Amino acid sequence: ATLQDKLQAGETQFNRKSFDDLILRKMFVIPSFEIHGGVKGLFDLGPPACALKAAMIDMWRKHFVLAENMLEMECTCLTPQVVLKTSGHVDRFTDLMVKDPATGECFRADKLLEDAIDDLIEKNPTMPNAEKEEHLKIQRQADAFSPTELDELLVKYNCKGPSGEAYSPSFPFNLMFQTSIGPEGTAVGYLRPETAQGLFVNFRRLLDLNAGKTPFAAAQIGLGFRNEIAPRSGLLRVREFCMGEIEHFVNPNDKSHPNFASVAGKELVLFGRDDQLGSGKTKTVAIGEAVKSGLVNNETLGYFMARTQLYMEKIGMDPKRLRFRQHLTTEMAHYATDCWDLEIQSSYGWVECVGHADRACYDLEVHSKATKTPMVATEKVDPPVGIEYAKIKFDRKLLGQAFKQDQRIVSGLLDGLAEDWKNFEPIATALDTDGKTTVDGFEITKEMVSWTKSSKKVHEVKFTPSVIEPSFGMGRILYSLLEHSFYTREGDEQRTVMRFNPQVAPQKCAVFPISSNAECNAVVDEIAADLMDSDLATRVDKSSAALGRRYARTDELGVPFAVTVDFETLKDNTVTLRERDSMKQVRLPKSEITPLLMRIVHGKLNWDAVTKKYPLVQVDEGDGVVAE
Amino acid sequence: ATLQDKLQAGETQFNRKSFDDLILRKMFVIPSFEIHGGVKGLFDLGPPACALKAAMIDMWRKHFVLAENMLEMECTCLTPQVVLKTSGHVDRFTDLMVKDPATGECFRADKLLEDAIDDLIEKNPTMPNAEKEEHLKIQRQADAFSPTELDELLVKYNCKGPSGEAYSPSFPFNLMFQTSIGPEGTAVGYLRPETAQGLFVNFRRLLDLNAGKTPFAAAQIGLGFRNEIAPRSGLLRVREFCMGEIEHFVNPNDKSHPNFASVAGKELVLFGRDDQLGSGKTKTVAIGEAVKSGLVNNETLGYFMARTQLYMEKIGMDPKRLRFRQHLTTEMAHYATDCWDLEIQSSYGWVECVGHADRACYDLEVHSKATKTPMVATEKVDPPVGIEYAKIKFDRKLLGQAFKQDQRIVSGLLDGLAEDWKNFEPIATALDTDGKTTVDGFEITKEMVSWTKSSKKVHEVKFTPSVIEPSFGMGRILYSLLEHSFYTREGDEQRTVMRFNPQVAPQKCAVFPISSNAECNAVVDEIAADLMDSDLATRVDKSSAALGRRYARTDELGVPFAVTVDFETLKDNTVTLRERDSMKQVRLPKSEITPLLMRIVHGKLNWDAVTKKYPLVQVDEGDGVVAE
Repeated sequence: ATLQDKLQAGETQFNRKSFDDLILRKMFVIPSFEIHGGVKGLFDLGPPACALKAAMIDMWRKHFVLAENMLEMECTCLTPQVVLKTSGHVDRFTDLMVKDPATGECFRADKLLEDAIDDLIEKNPTMPNAEKEEHLKIQRQADAFSPTELDELLVKYNCKGPSGEAYSPSFPFNLMFQTSIGPEGTAVGYLRPETAQGLFVNFRRLLDLNAGKTPFAAAQIGLGFRNEIAPRSGLLRVREFCMGEIEHFVNPNDKSHPNFASVAGKELVLFGRDDQLGSGKTKTVAIGEAVKSGLVNNETLGYFMARTQLYMEKIGMDPKRLRFRQHLTTEMAHYATDCWDLEIQSSYGWVECVGHADRACYDLEVHSKATKTPMVATEKVDPPVGIEYAKIKFDRKLLGQAFKQDQRIVSGLLDGLAEDWKNFEPIATALDTDGKTTVDGFEITKEMVSWTKSSKKVHEVKFTPSVIEPSFGMGRILYSLLEHSFYTREGDEQRTVMRFNPQVAPQKCAVFPISSNAECNAVVDEIAADLMDSDLATRVDKSSAALGRRYARTDELGVPFAVTVDFETLKDNTVTLRERDSMKQVRLPKSEITPLLMRIVHGKLNWDAVTKKYPLVQVDEGDGVVAE
Repeated sequence: ATLQDKLQAGETQFNRKSFDDLILRKMFVIPSFEIHGGVKGLFDLGPPACALKAAMIDMWRKHFVLAENMLEMECTCLTPQVVLKTSGHVDRFTDLMVKDPATGECFRADKLLEDAIDDLIEKNPTMPNAEKEEHLKIQRQADAFSPTELDELLVKYNCKGPSGEAYSPSFPFNLMFQTSIGPEGTAVGYLRPETAQGLFVNFRRLLDLNAGKTPFAAAQIGLGFRNEIAPRSGLLRVREFCMGEIEHFVNPNDKSHPNFASVAGKELVLFGRDDQLGSGKTKTVAIGEAVKSGLVNNETLGYFMARTQLYMEKIGMDPKRLRFRQHLTTEMAHYATDCWDLEIQSSYGWVECVGHADRACYDLEVHSKATKTPMVATEKVDPPVGIEYAKIKFDRKLLGQAFKQDQRIVSGLLDGLAEDWKNFEPIATALDTDGKTTVDGFEITKEMVSWTKSSKKVHEVKFTPSVIEPSFGMGRILYSLLEHSFYTREGDEQRTVMRFNPQVAPQKCAVFPISSNAECNAVVDEIAADLMDSDLATRVDKSSAALGRRYARTDELGVPFAVTVDFETLKDNTVTLRERDSMKQVRLPKSEITPLLMRIVHGKLNWDAVTKKYPLVQVDEGDGVVAE
């Protein structure tokens, strides 16, 4: 969290103490293994957060997977080394770390730099704006510097370890948890740092299942693990987390999206690369415009950004605290075309919660190469197009002598390259010039193969699909939603409320008897059973606490509605229905409760309409019903 | 899988080849990281199994968690060593392993014994029954023998390694995956072998959230990991798996269950301890009788067994292939009171899929002791009961001198013990006799504390709750359901069908146009959108394949219903609705499809009723509609 962010977040007057108290007391989120001293970066979800997460995931599945016929998979967390070596994670999934040489304590180098800049600005309130902006620009690039650059900056900003000594030079620390698979102890495995690789390695089967057609998307919801160097910021930087990832496979020459028109008018808050290094200000732009102007690279990337925004609004995130930040060129992987993070503002500042990356063909190509498995799609072209290729012929006898059981691999490799003259040309040149060349480790001589450059008309083309990847940090989204949902009643700091909308609310309705009268209790049970029978999670509170106290308990859990069974109910079968945020109540027949809530929970009716249909009841929650 | 089991399973004429082909081709379950050579014991779920699992879990949550107000949590997989040391897993979560000394290859000793007995019986078809029964009795106890016993039996049954050499002596191999948490590399962690520990360590917060009341249950659905020595049997023995666990906390002196009457008449197939060692035959008994006769230890354990049976029936498991097998005394943990495994029969034999264990107070007691955290519940007693306790008094000065900052811990420990004279008596005796004693590592002398044995009436009692634990292997259940659902059409081995019931079916309905006519397509889209809007997962197939071919495709995925839009639809807005297993079709207005399927999927209507309400249509699926 940068100072600037903290100030911005401060405007919302977030009451951390009372928020934290509620979160722990009602077991939304608690430190894991607390009685054993806990482990940094590990948190448990208690009953209300568990239900909230289930609702968020259910909505995610409907909004993304079902709505677009994505192919959902569930792959394993345990991953053998070869897969993550291939993907580049074994070599490059690192953060820069420094040690305090006196104590051996480890720190993330970029975070130290960020904190040092915060400190510097805080201690110099009279610093000229231009100078401040220079520092903030460096801060915004903190995780994109090279080790040498970072080392120099840590010296420049006078960063010292807790012991007072200068830090060690920064060095890369791999964030994957390592283990060993099988009883022999020789097979290295890791816990996956992302779910994506499981989908990439299954690309061929997925394409078959999709009857060979592109574009299509695969999706996965599951755990990821990162051995963070110094976890902090509560649920926002943890070592085990739930992700939702989509891999959309598309022809690299045509990244249009068939449904783009449906979102083109949607306005997003964009924080482009140039603005980050320049003005420091965001722009609000319709995604259609942003794609047209080239700010966002292509329709499919833009489509998913808009769909993510819509999802966030659907689950009840505050739209004013959402923005899309483009990756700086130095931040992006070398193969990536364009990346935009959805950042959500909370008391910890602006935090990346959903990545949207155009990863080009990188992932499929590396797995294809490592496994010698073709990972290509085909597309019909009409009219047919002319292509240049190499018509080749092998001397099978020579091949057999040279490569024995590998001869089919070698001929397969050359056949593959020969399909496109562009790929075969360097080999042809080398064979012509040197009489031999090496293909994937095999030494080929001129005598083994002859060729002629030819051309033909083809009705379909092969291509390695590009991957456009929206990647959701579900835990971060959940935490942000908790903050965005939290408020205290006007004039009463003690009464805390979670404003979960009826779609995501962990429990949809509470049912109370006004007294412990047996007849009232029977009606309460009947109403609750009817609600539960329609899968509306219901909370029954028959305690002797005052009604107002019982309402307050439901407010803390974000239960949007409460039904109270009173003595009138026993006469005319009507009950009161209270809405959480307005605290207004209406009176209606008990038999109408379940169908009414079903429609509200499925977004087909809102509270305003309810207050127009049924008579309002005047209520003072401190003392119970006072007047009608 | 024992030979006996194989024979029994054989009766069902399971066609493995065509089952395996379907499972792979439609991506129900596929080996993980296949293109990289795969890893034994790791499997991915593809789209249809993913949806099936989501439905199974949704029903589990409703059947167990929501229906009984259980407190659901989601704890982390990464677990620090201290927690699993406390639970006993670091020391005792092992299988006995042997090595082939020539090759270093590792094997599970009990499985070798089981296989050897299978072989022996198979090779001696004329073996007298009594002798055969002796061997089978040994086989049934295979995983309960000590290392020495197993070593002797491996010699007796002449088990040799693949190299021909005798195996190494058997030794325990810990099945937990180990890793290290944090950048320093010094903190040992494991992947949890079960989800239960996360619930135990949170007991105090859960009890608070439940307003201090027992009995109550906590539940968790999540991943478990076991580094199986030699995984085999497909999805039935894997290294990463989804579990659903319930920990029901109950007063050890009263294990009755308030809802037991609702299940008492439910008949279960029970394979008690005595029958396993004796007759080898199961008994069908109402659970009420089984608890009354003492065969099943208590109501709560019996209640969950019956609820598990009901869940299995609800998701569509074949009731004839379910049985509850009691653990042998040698199989049970020393602290356990009674354990019954729900076993499901598949082509691999009878396999444990749900454990039901009365674990007594073991789990809470070990964590309480290790963390010095009281983990007790209280219960009101009326009328009050008399208890004997020690009224004690400390010499605070002496305590302070002896224990400095620890003096509060020491006095707290003694206060705790003094509450019950039974606990304090040994200390009193030791102090009287030796003048000193040791409590939790602290040396106490006679001078530090004085006491009198007293008695008083109390209105509430404290107790460490017993834990009754139903533990579901969701992956094993999923795989068993796939086998139980699979069949081939009478007279056509090629036409394979999955008979998923509408509740669990991954997709609820398919919608086809009879031709590629644009008007037909528009109606198809309209019907599909309407179904999806009610959250009914729908498959659209506009391909040019013959209708019969398209029906067959839905059969393979277990889609229970298919709607066909034909030329009549364009005239009168009616469509045909086909049911998968009967292949019967009715004709009805298109607007009635969604409400009808909603009622069927929610179990409020069945196909029989549908065929009575709407006219049947005569259809030959080979050639399309032939007559009406």
